Amino acid sequence: WDGEFFPGIPKINYEGPKSKNPLSFKWYNAEEEILGKEMKDWMRFSVAFWHTFRGTGGDPFGAPTKVWPWEDGTNSLDMAKRRMRANFEFLEKLGVDKWCFHDRDIAPEGNTLKESNANLDEIVTLAKELQGTKIHPLWGTAQLFFNPRYMHGAATSPDMAVYTYAAAQVKKAMEVTHYLGGENYVFWGGREGYQTLLNTDMERELDHYATFLQAAADWKKKIGFNGTLLIEPKPQEPTKHQYDWDAATTASFLRKYGLIGEFKLNVECNHATLSGHSCHHELETARINGLLGNIDANTGDPQVGWDTDEFLTDISEATLVMLSVVRNGGLAPGGFNFDAKLRRESTDVVDLFIAHISGMDTLARGLRNVAKLIEDGTLAELVRNRYKTFDSEFGSQIEAGKVDFETLEKKAFELGEPRVASGKQELAEMIFQSVL
Amino acid sequence: WDGEFFPGIPKINYEGPKSKNPLSFKWYNAEEEILGKEMKDWMRFSVAFWHTFRGTGGDPFGAPTKVWPWEDGTNSLDMAKRRMRANFEFLEKLGVDKWCFHDRDIAPEGNTLKESNANLDEIVTLAKELQGTKIHPLWGTAQLFFNPRYMHGAATSPDMAVYTYAAAQVKKAMEVTHYLGGENYVFWGGREGYQTLLNTDMERELDHYATFLQAAADWKKKIGFNGTLLIEPKPQEPTKHQYDWDAATTASFLRKYGLIGEFKLNVECNHATLSGHSCHHELETARINGLLGNIDANTGDPQVGWDTDEFLTDISEATLVMLSVVRNGGLAPGGFNFDAKLRRESTDVVDLFIAHISGMDTLARGLRNVAKLIEDGTLAELVRNRYKTFDSEFGSQIEAGKVDFETLEKKAFELGEPRVASGKQELAEMIFQSVL
Amino acid sequence: WDGEFFPGIPKINYEGPKSKNPLSFKWYNAEEEILGKEMKDWMRFSVAFWHTFRGTGGDPFGAPTKVWPWEDGTNSLDMAKRRMRANFEFLEKLGVDKWCFHDRDIAPEGNTLKESNANLDEIVTLAKELQGTKIHPLWGTAQLFFNPRYMHGAATSPDMAVYTYAAAQVKKAMEVTHYLGGENYVFWGGREGYQTLLNTDMERELDHYATFLQAAADWKKKIGFNGTLLIEPKPQEPTKHQYDWDAATTASFLRKYGLIGEFKLNVECNHATLSGHSCHHELETARINGLLGNIDANTGDPQVGWDTDEFLTDISEATLVMLSVVRNGGLAPGGFNFDAKLRRESTDVVDLFIAHISGMDTLARGLRNVAKLIEDGTLAELVRNRYKTFDSEFGSQIEAGKVDFETLEKKAFELGEPRVASGKQELAEMIFQSVL
Amino acid sequence: WDGEFFPGIPKINYEGPKSKNPLSFKWYNAEEEILGKEMKDWMRFSVAFWHTFRGTGGDPFGAPTKVWPWEDGTNSLDMAKRRMRANFEFLEKLGVDKWCFHDRDIAPEGNTLKESNANLDEIVTLAKELQGTKIHPLWGTAQLFFNPRYMHGAATSPDMAVYTYAAAQVKKAMEVTHYLGGENYVFWGGREGYQTLLNTDMERELDHYATFLQAAADWKKKIGFNGTLLIEPKPQEPTKHQYDWDAATTASFLRKYGLIGEFKLNVECNHATLSGHSCHHELETARINGLLGNIDANTGDPQVGWDTDEFLTDISEATLVMLSVVRNGGLAPGGFNFDAKLRRESTDVVDLFIAHISGMDTLARGLRNVAKLIEDGTLAELVRNRYKTFDSEFGSQIEAGKVDFETLEKKAFELGEPRVASGKQELAEMIFQSVL
Repeated sequence: WDGEFFPGIPKINYEGPKSKNPLSFKWYNAEEEILGKEMKDWMRFSVAFWHTFRGTGGDPFGAPTKVWPWEDGTNSLDMAKRRMRANFEFLEKLGVDKWCFHDRDIAPEGNTLKESNANLDEIVTLAKELQGTKIHPLWGTAQLFFNPRYMHGAATSPDMAVYTYAAAQVKKAMEVTHYLGGENYVFWGGREGYQTLLNTDMERELDHYATFLQAAADWKKKIGFNGTLLIEPKPQEPTKHQYDWDAATTASFLRKYGLIGEFKLNVECNHATLSGHSCHHELETARINGLLGNIDANTGDPQVGWDTDEFLTDISEATLVMLSVVRNGGLAPGGFNFDAKLRRESTDVVDLFIAHISGMDTLARGLRNVAKLIEDGTLAELVRNRYKTFDSEFGSQIEAGKVDFETLEKKAFELGEPRVASGKQELAEMIFQSVL
Repeated sequence: WDGEFFPGIPKINYEGPKSKNPLSFKWYNAEEEILGKEMKDWMRFSVAFWHTFRGTGGDPFGAPTKVWPWEDGTNSLDMAKRRMRANFEFLEKLGVDKWCFHDRDIAPEGNTLKESNANLDEIVTLAKELQGTKIHPLWGTAQLFFNPRYMHGAATSPDMAVYTYAAAQVKKAMEVTHYLGGENYVFWGGREGYQTLLNTDMERELDHYATFLQAAADWKKKIGFNGTLLIEPKPQEPTKHQYDWDAATTASFLRKYGLIGEFKLNVECNHATLSGHSCHHELETARINGLLGNIDANTGDPQVGWDTDEFLTDISEATLVMLSVVRNGGLAPGGFNFDAKLRRESTDVVDLFIAHISGMDTLARGLRNVAKLIEDGTLAELVRNRYKTFDSEFGSQIEAGKVDFETLEKKAFELGEPRVASGKQELAEMIFQSVL
Repeated sequence: WDGEFFPGIPKINYEGPKSKNPLSFKWYNAEEEILGKEMKDWMRFSVAFWHTFRGTGGDPFGAPTKVWPWEDGTNSLDMAKRRMRANFEFLEKLGVDKWCFHDRDIAPEGNTLKESNANLDEIVTLAKELQGTKIHPLWGTAQLFFNPRYMHGAATSPDMAVYTYAAAQVKKAMEVTHYLGGENYVFWGGREGYQTLLNTDMERELDHYATFLQAAADWKKKIGFNGTLLIEPKPQEPTKHQYDWDAATTASFLRKYGLIGEFKLNVECNHATLSGHSCHHELETARINGLLGNIDANTGDPQVGWDTDEFLTDISEATLVMLSVVRNGGLAPGGFNFDAKLRRESTDVVDLFIAHISGMDTLARGLRNVAKLIEDGTLAELVRNRYKTFDSEFGSQIEAGKVDFETLEKKAFELGEPRVASGKQELAEMIFQSVL
Repeated sequence: WDGEFFPGIPKINYEGPKSKNPLSFKWYNAEEEILGKEMKDWMRFSVAFWHTFRGTGGDPFGAPTKVWPWEDGTNSLDMAKRRMRANFEFLEKLGVDKWCFHDRDIAPEGNTLKESNANLDEIVTLAKELQGTKIHPLWGTAQLFFNPRYMHGAATSPDMAVYTYAAAQVKKAMEVTHYLGGENYVFWGGREGYQTLLNTDMERELDHYATFLQAAADWKKKIGFNGTLLIEPKPQEPTKHQYDWDAATTASFLRKYGLIGEFKLNVECNHATLSGHSCHHELETARINGLLGNIDANTGDPQVGWDTDEFLTDISEATLVMLSVVRNGGLAPGGFNFDAKLRRESTDVVDLFIAHISGMDTLARGLRNVAKLIEDGTLAELVRNRYKTFDSEFGSQIEAGKVDFETLEKKAFELGEPRVASGKQELAEMIFQSVL
């Protein structure tokens, strides 16, 4: 393969909201300062290698649909290298300086673990070179779900040999992430869960999972990798019940096993809604538990019960996502990856660009809306005002845990029937909509 | 009101599976020994006062439908006393020696908290007398959701006066539960949650909630009440998001705020399915976290998105519920309450008995099935066998947390590609069905 | 009650998008012309009497929360008259000239049907007077679900006496709607459905339902009422399965029983999402079946499994709703009612105005977006282009039903493997977002 | 490949409920007479070729897991023949004399349609020979969803060339089904639906779909095929909205386009629950519309939002399914196919047998329960009794459509307030459970 991968596609530039050019940013202006930071520093966008370069369009009912011109139909090392070059051209044209990967989507699995490791090393060496000085991974991870050996889970497989194999694979993936200058390392528990409790010892599996993660955290220190370790909650799919169901479940697990200081969360919006929560709820839950580390800023379909991994295009949702990010003071060393894929039926190379531009612009538009919301100030004031009685002296003592039931009862007799104020939800919604 | 409340209804007796008499037990035989315990000691059934004696059949689209002969249409103290006597006749005829209550469903709320307390005292005195020596509450609780003052929550209300009022109400409810010999005290966070994050400071509300529960745990010790404190998870309804979403969320909360030793869970099956889990999953999650304290053994409709609180009639579900109970070594000092209500359209007095008999029989049938499952042994063997590699020396070391990634990698190279065994789910399901 | 009901509230005026005044329209400018019609003629807004004037804030877990100053706590005829006057002041201040009602929410039910009819007549006489020449009902309906007599359904009750009673009630409700100049009459099958198939003869109930609706259509003609008859689909709640599940189910029913020319649909957005469809899907399904008659423009919560009847504030949704309306050439003689209620916790009188303004503005903003979309033209072109092969000669013959399998097979051999174009979903979403 | 495919597996025999042998029937006794028919004639079981012989265990997150000894890793004609022989050995050992297939799962797709047809002919010739005199297809169908050409649908593709290709493929599939003695022909609208309405002309697509089906019905007559044409409803997956959403939607479509006499429905239980209905509801809806033709007797997971296609093992569900079948007087010329697959993690050859035995036994147990229910008679009596007022003279006239609103009103005044009877749901559930 010679020359450009995307010959007809120019560098994507910011042209502002009035532009009709699909290959331009209307809202994302990387160097523009918003709320005291350049947009690119709020967003910290990365491209997900697996969806963008390994997504085939296959689904449970159909064969692959993508016929990218640079693909030769093989899973060879040569093909892996060519794909990696396409990735870096894509990053450059999109103006994104971070990427994410699973070990097995960048390099082919070999016949043995050693061979797989060697393949990985070869590709990683090339990636390192292509990265240059400006580009590096937002995060890396190990793919522990595709190969049949992991069909019952990896760290939670009932088979000790699988646990062992998985540990070796994660060890290597952490090492290459470190080598490439990755800022985080992610655990998505692909098949860490169960299909039926009838054949499962859930307690034992969870114990194994904790032991595995502890060993990973130990290894991180051993090799001097300073990146954040992230767990990505998902409620189900492929398993009926994934152990990292949602932010709260994962927090409970981390607390139970003494892992709370070692890990943060990578919250995915589509996973959030599959678990019965809004994305904003999951982000806020992670944030107030000190666990908000990274965001998979995709979206699902509210009427669909599986992970559709769509690029986020909802303005309201994007505004709420960015609200959590701003409250969190940003996400660094984490950031955004899309974990979003082209629809199966979108088969033009240019669709890859349109989709990413759309996702980036939507989040950028969300950030601009948050700035308007903060500048306006009315909504924050409405919320603060609702809790003002707790800012009183007695309220502060309650919050400090200094007031016992006897004192509270005495106070209740004294205060008589409370006069409860309106929750003003419709007003809050009106104010929120006014910045969209 | 003179004489019997249920004149046509005899004491319900065990007549065995072949009986066609709706007013008999076909599976529940209180004194029969199963798995080393009398059935009644496994089950520890209680009747829920609120559904059985205060359920009106009203729903969001319709007026009350029940016209019980003993009701006079008032919410007077006299009516409350009459109702309490009906309760004890019901318990006796059903052969159940435990009951559960909310403060406000047994005694009318007064114009002031003092008046409400006085009303409660009067009814509780009568209940104490009617209890005699054999009957007592499985648990009591405070109703912190019906009165408009609690519309934004009780312990999580943004209004300090409401927090204060709620504390006084819980204090009193704990005291009367203790006085009546109650074995547990339940917190169902009726409106502890939010309707929209736009007007809510979730972090501050959760902090308040923890402070409140800590004060409750302190008060328990102060008054010498030895009952278990239980939190009842529910994902949503009435609020869009309830803070005690499910067992894992509640465990996370308890761990975060250092409350883990003070509280257990009251798991409700209908709440389980509303949160996207099977009831068995929630029970097992509670159990392996050492938190399984009590069960609301009702059921919902798998196609319906709200709490229907039906009496459990599914044999398979009941068998799984009892499997968790047996694994837990029973539930004492907790037990079963039904938290189930007659359908709105079931308006005959006898329907109250039929529903309870059906619910009790279904769980009893479940227990008998568990005994068969254990006696058969095949399923347990299938599960044990799946994990046997971890019983090896290396497996044990892994489980002990003694094996680091370097050692695991070495072992992985040594072991080569794992040969993963079939999960045998269909066989497990076949064995399970064979005991139903 | 003397003087104004809403003394602090001015007539709501259009102030444009930059206004920060909650009591102004930012997008709805009644007389402004959009796409060839004045906004008010596209929207045909009406106020729903039941939610706005009879909504109490009660829910299955809590007592009423609203304490409107004009309410005296009774359900008297005098109170009904006062409320009706409040309704007309509300309409006037909001600048809306249509309203909707259930018979029983405007006038109290009496002890007998005759008394109920007399009460209704008295209130309707007042309403007629208050309407003057500019105001009239968008539609009326009979409330056939609140009273316990309807607990098993009305037209589908297993009890003939209930069917009979319901018919009498609908007869009267149609007559008063006609008398008031109502433009439509709605059937919402409150409890026309089942709780369990175990006790239900679904076929017989559906036959009864059809017979009932045929009699209603006959009566309409008999009394010279020219309004449209509308059925409002809802999938479930209060029953487990409502017979008018969704637009397609209702269309099937109408076709089976030969009622297709007599009825149209009143599509509700919240009901749409509860049935697993987007609101836009339901509107389009109704439209292409020639059945789109009226819209309940509310919204639910995508994570909540029951009818929350919120005012629509989602811009994207509103744009899709208005797209269907524009394609339909408007809704007349139907229009919009909100079927939306204040949140239980919104207890200020002014919240009633804020909520309605928000709902009206959101739809108006949607209409403005549709105008932009149409002016831009790109999206329509994208769609048209996808089907262009069917505009060929052979394609037209296929569409005319003139091409048999043999000819198609021959053509297929001739054409060889089709080259299928990209679906361009991401581009379509980008274009759509650009007008929001 | 020489000799047996399943060397260790004996012919599966009926051994009765006490047998512990997984490779025996406990409830299905083919020649035993139940309710006046041999069990096999009620059940009319068939094996689904695609799941049983082409199911690989692959899922969206993982590679194939099945390594059947007879597979050589190719998709050759030789492999197709070997597989077909395995199919017939499987049928024989299981004691099932019907099978179902998609054209493309029995024979490999060629480079052209002609080549595909030739491949199909070669395999079908072998199948015809292997069938002998006792075996034949319950139904055949064309696979119109796997190949990328069908990514936007087949009959509803926006591309005329795809419509044409699909017609040619269906023509051939109908012909080979006829040749093999198939009793039915199924249309499962794999991708007949949409991913987003933004790029879709739903009305035009539905028109095309109807035209296509009409041409299919015409072709059926032309070739003298007397089998029933069946449409299989599914709400979504792979598309966001499938046009054949559920039984009612499909009935509406058939009625709108005048196809109602030409097609029946193939109801799948897992599709039923995905569409928000119970399987029993869908079966009854099909039945009372005269459309119940065939059943895909699988099951989903009530907590999972996608099609899991599990073998049915729920006794209660199976009893309800068989209740509909018995009410329908059986399913002939339709029957049961399982459309169920081994779990991905079930990788032993014997699991194929266990799964089928389990599914067959569960339905057989359901049939036995229905016989008990009918013999008992109490439940049917309870239902009949609920509607008895309609058996009166006035009730019969209502049912005959002879009573107008005026007469009904007069009658209502006469009858006064109806006294509505209890719905007895709990009793109905108790009776139902007693036969399980």
